[in-house]
Amino acid sequence: MDKLIECVPNFSEGRRDEVISAIKAAVEAHAGEGVRLLDSLADPDHNRLVLTFLGPPEAVVEAAFDACRKASELIDMNVHRGSHPRIGAADVIPLVPARAVEMSECIDLARALGARIARELDIPVYLYEEAAVRPERRSLADIRKGQYEGLKEAVAVDPARTPDYGPPRLHPTAGATVVGARWPLIAFNVNLASSDIRVAREIARAVRESSGGLPCVRAIGLRLEDRDLVQVSMNLTNFRVTPVHVAFEAVRREAARRGVEVVESEVVGLVPAEALAAAAAHYMAVKGLTREQLLETHF
Amino acid sequence: MDKLIECVPNFSEGRRDEVISAIKAAVEAHAGEGVRLLDSLADPDHNRLVLTFLGPPEAVVEAAFDACRKASELIDMNVHRGSHPRIGAADVIPLVPARAVEMSECIDLARALGARIARELDIPVYLYEEAAVRPERRSLADIRKGQYEGLKEAVAVDPARTPDYGPPRLHPTAGATVVGARWPLIAFNVNLASSDIRVAREIARAVRESSGGLPCVRAIGLRLEDRDLVQVSMNLTNFRVTPVHVAFEAVRREAARRGVEVVESEVVGLVPAEALAAAAAHYMAVKGLTREQLLETHF
Repeated sequence: MDKLIECVPNFSEGRRDEVISAIKAAVEAHAGEGVRLLDSLADPDHNRLVLTFLGPPEAVVEAAFDACRKASELIDMNVHRGSHPRIGAADVIPLVPARAVEMSECIDLARALGARIARELDIPVYLYEEAAVRPERRSLADIRKGQYEGLKEAVAVDPARTPDYGPPRLHPTAGATVVGARWPLIAFNVNLASSDIRVAREIARAVRESSGGLPCVRAIGLRLEDRDLVQVSMNLTNFRVTPVHVAFEAVRREAARRGVEVVESEVVGLVPAEALAAAAAHYMAVKGLTREQLLETHF
Repeated sequence: MDKLIECVPNFSEGRRDEVISAIKAAVEAHAGEGVRLLDSLADPDHNRLVLTFLGPPEAVVEAAFDACRKASELIDMNVHRGSHPRIGAADVIPLVPARAVEMSECIDLARALGARIARELDIPVYLYEEAAVRPERRSLADIRKGQYEGLKEAVAVDPARTPDYGPPRLHPTAGATVVGARWPLIAFNVNLASSDIRVAREIARAVRESSGGLPCVRAIGLRLEDRDLVQVSMNLTNFRVTPVHVAFEAVRREAARRGVEVVESEVVGLVPAEALAAAAAHYMAVKGLTREQLLETHF
């Protein structure tokens, strides 16, 4: 079975069409090697572009490198403004095992990619999540503390901010890049029949890891202004540790305790079928279902 | 895109390891032509082996023929006992379009395979489902009426039971074989906390299409001798018409009406990921989930 990895890089440009197109073209140039661009989301408020592509490991890494180089040529962090935290033109490049690939291989590829970005593009690189070499750098939020502007000052003077690869100073226009390996992330929201934002925030606090809830769950409470509902918006960073249905049932239970019903839920973007199969197996008490039983994994 | 078909033959042996291994080996011998054995389930209660393999059309047909020959050499239907209906050593051989293959091609391949089994192995063959040449033989249950023992009597005297290929008498040890072409089928069993076979049979009757239940659902009630449980064993022949979770909930509801609980369920062999995603979406009220959101559809 051919190996496949997924790459979901974030670039600090969500407004200029010609820059967005050039970065996408750098990925699409690797179509001949089996790289397929599956999704592209440019957000003008965040001023940020998120690409999702899939392909054979080496080809995906080449495409990621070329997209990083293109972004570093076209984006000047000194003039970048946007509502999403960022430290560089190619802000974060995660590699994700998709098929017949071990996490250890993604870690090796991420470290090699990071070293190459530092060496060939002269951009300092931080390794995060599974590829982190310093335990305190597993968290992307910690690496991005102070964002581009803060890191620019800190990188030269604070040994805790020294990059894993490259010089202890930011690239003059492209800033720094975070490269890593992670499990598939599932963006999963649950909408509640309440207009009370406090309910959503309390439930988010109850279920997220950072405040003692479920491991590998990040959560915030939001108000859906146009619908008179509130939402618990979650990122599930390892569905094998906390499955989708466990997160869903935790939200449902916390809501029920407060007399609030679940209206519906939503999956944003891609989701491994395996994660939904596990949820189906839970609700229908399916014993012994394996990933290999899913027809599509064999194509 | 290379053509792929799936073959899910059922053999009347779920107990003797050496026979099971020999049948599997007959399929695996075609690995060099691209045939991959994806799943193998030997059930001692059913006394039945279900294999699932995938590959280029011609190679899959060769593997199916060789497995049929091996089963016909090693299984004697005169001494076979098991809880699942059967008429032959290689009981049923369905060909399923998997990728870039039309149903019409599977029908042609199934008819050619059936003719060859009759000619070379002297086993009478019935064509079923999409490959049926008599409309009343679309249904596997109708072809298997009376099972091996009943068909042995009927085949020579009842013109309605005359095989589509081969002589109007069963093979002395291998019985008869049913060959056909069909859409993906989900084999889905629900085990119930009861030892009363009548409960399972009543529920099977309530949910299956043939007695006024759910469309595209076939169901029988079985006893799992070694576990003191009964089972509603279902085939879902079109999961877009009756989804897995609809069938499951129908069984659960019918069982609850009789004061019986569901112990667990099982999926036998391969299942389209889309079918389980639909079930997950049902139980977690996921709105607007599309097939394109499933990562594996892009493999």
